[in-house]
Amino acid sequence: MTINFGDFKNGAHHFPVHIFWNATDAGGVVYYANYLKMAEEARGSLEKLFGPKPGEFMVRKCSVEYMKPARHNDDLMIRTTCGELKGASITIEQEVMRDEEILVKLSTTLVFVDLSTLKPARIPETYIAKLKEIKNEQ
Amino acid sequence: MTINFGDFKNGAHHFPVHIFWNATDAGGVVYYANYLKMAEEARGSLEKLFGPKPGEFMVRKCSVEYMKPARHNDDLMIRTTCGELKGASITIEQEVMRDEEILVKLSTTLVFVDLSTLKPARIPETYIAKLKEIKNEQ
Amino acid sequence: MTINFGDFKNGAHHFPVHIFWNATDAGGVVYYANYLKMAEEARGSLEKLFGPKPGEFMVRKCSVEYMKPARHNDDLMIRTTCGELKGASITIEQEVMRDEEILVKLSTTLVFVDLSTLKPARIPETYIAKLKEIKNEQ
Amino acid sequence: MTINFGDFKNGAHHFPVHIFWNATDAGGVVYYANYLKMAEEARGSLEKLFGPKPGEFMVRKCSVEYMKPARHNDDLMIRTTCGELKGASITIEQEVMRDEEILVKLSTTLVFVDLSTLKPARIPETYIAKLKEIKNEQ
Repeated sequence: MTINFGDFKNGAHHFPVHIFWNATDAGGVVYYANYLKMAEEARGSLEKLFGPKPGEFMVRKCSVEYMKPARHNDDLMIRTTCGELKGASITIEQEVMRDEEILVKLSTTLVFVDLSTLKPARIPETYIAKLKEIKNEQ
Repeated sequence: MTINFGDFKNGAHHFPVHIFWNATDAGGVVYYANYLKMAEEARGSLEKLFGPKPGEFMVRKCSVEYMKPARHNDDLMIRTTCGELKGASITIEQEVMRDEEILVKLSTTLVFVDLSTLKPARIPETYIAKLKEIKNEQ
Repeated sequence: MTINFGDFKNGAHHFPVHIFWNATDAGGVVYYANYLKMAEEARGSLEKLFGPKPGEFMVRKCSVEYMKPARHNDDLMIRTTCGELKGASITIEQEVMRDEEILVKLSTTLVFVDLSTLKPARIPETYIAKLKEIKNEQ
Repeated sequence: MTINFGDFKNGAHHFPVHIFWNATDAGGVVYYANYLKMAEEARGSLEKLFGPKPGEFMVRKCSVEYMKPARHNDDLMIRTTCGELKGASITIEQEVMRDEEILVKLSTTLVFVDLSTLKPARIPETYIAKLKEIKNEQ
C-alpha cells in the first residue's frame, strides 16, 4: 500500500484530506492554523510527484481567506495551482474544497533556497516545466 | 479520488503515513506527541472502515515506547491490532513501522461512550465482530 | 502563581512566548503555521484582560509575512495593536519580535459572532473602548 | 516582561498553563496529544531554571492516564517531580491539575544524550543535585 500524494486533473493538483479529531477545535470546526498544515502537505505531495530537488522552498508570505468552516469527519480536497512564477520565487494558490464548495483559499509565496549556501536560488528547470502545467492564468 | 483509510492484511489494519514538515521538530525527528496524532488517524480510519456507531471512543490511557526516530520525508505504516476487549472498553495496540523496522509502539485504552448520556456504553456488536478479526493473541 | 496574559505598554499589548520543541520543525526553525497559534494565544490573552464578552471572534482572513525565522529556545514577544475597527469586525495587527527585531508580521480580520444566533454582532462597547487604547494610527 | 518558567514549591516544580483554542478539539476538550506538548513545556521550563547542559533529554517512554478532561479557557497547573533517577536516564512524573483536581498523569522516561556523540551520557551533576530536590519518594 502506498502513500497517496494526490493527482493532476484539469490543470491543477488535487490532494485529498480527511478531517480527524486532531485538526479540530472546541468551536466544532477545523482550527484556523491547521489549514496551513494541510496546505503544506498538499505542496509537499506535489514536490514528491515532481521529484528530488537541490534545495527547499521557504515560506515568505501566506494569505488565507476563511469562507466556510470544515468539520470533523469531512472529506476535503485541496486544489493547488501555480500563480506568479519568478526565477527564485513562486506563489502557490490553493483552495480547500468540500465537494464543489470552496471553504478556504490560501495564497503562499515561497522562495527556493539552495541548502548548501542557504541563499535564494533558481527554481530547477524541471520544476519550472511542471509548474507551468498547473499555471493558473487568472 | 478517495481518501485512503488503509486496509486489512494478516490480521491487522495497515495505515500509511508520510512525514511532512509539520510532524517534525528541530531535533530533526518526528516530535514525540505527533505519534499520538498519527495513531488517532489510524484508529479513526479503522472506524471509517467499520462504519457508523452510536457513540465515540474516549482515550483513558496511552503508553508509548519510542525505539527509533522517524524523520522528514519518511513513508511509514501504522499496524493496528486489537488487544484486550471488554464490554465498554478496548485496548488498541499500534506499531509505527518504516519498512520492517518498528519505530514506535503505542498501547491505547479507550472507553466507548454513548453520546446522549455521556456514559460508558457497550461497544456495538458489529464492532466487536470486526475487532475480533484483528484480535492480537499475545 | 498565575497565568501571564501579557500587559499594555506604549499603546500595544505585549505577550511573551518561549519557543519549546513543539513549535519547531526539522528545518531548525519555528514551523510556519505555529505563528498563528502564538498569535491566537496573544489575542486570547488580550480578551482575558478585557473581560467576558457575549460572543466569539471568528477569523475571516489572515495574512502573514515571514521576515526572519525564530528558533528553539528563543524568547519572543508578540506586540498586538488594533487596526481597522468596524461595527462587527476588526483587524488585529501583530508583530512577533525577538528583542528589537521583527521576525513575523500578522494581520488578522475577525468577525464578532453572537453565540446564540451564530450571526455577526456588534462588538461590545466595553471592548471598543479598550481596543481604541491600542488603536494603531497607521 | 519575562517568560514564566514556573517555580518550585513543596518539593515540586509548578508550571501554569492556560488552555487556548489551539489545544482543544471538537469534542469540546483538550486533545489527548496536547497534554504531551504541555508536559514538554513544563520539563523545558524546569531545564531553563536548572541552567545550560551539555546534551539533550530524549523521550524513551511515555505513559499517560486521562482522568478528567480540561476545556477551553481552563487555568491549569503542571506539577512535576522526579521519579527514578539513573546515571543516564530519568523518569519524570507530572500531574496536570485544575485547582486541587488531578486531570491527567504523565510518566515520561528520558535518556540524556551527548550531542557530540549522540550517545547516552551521564546526567550532569548539577542537574542530579537539583533533581534530587524534587525527588518524589513514592
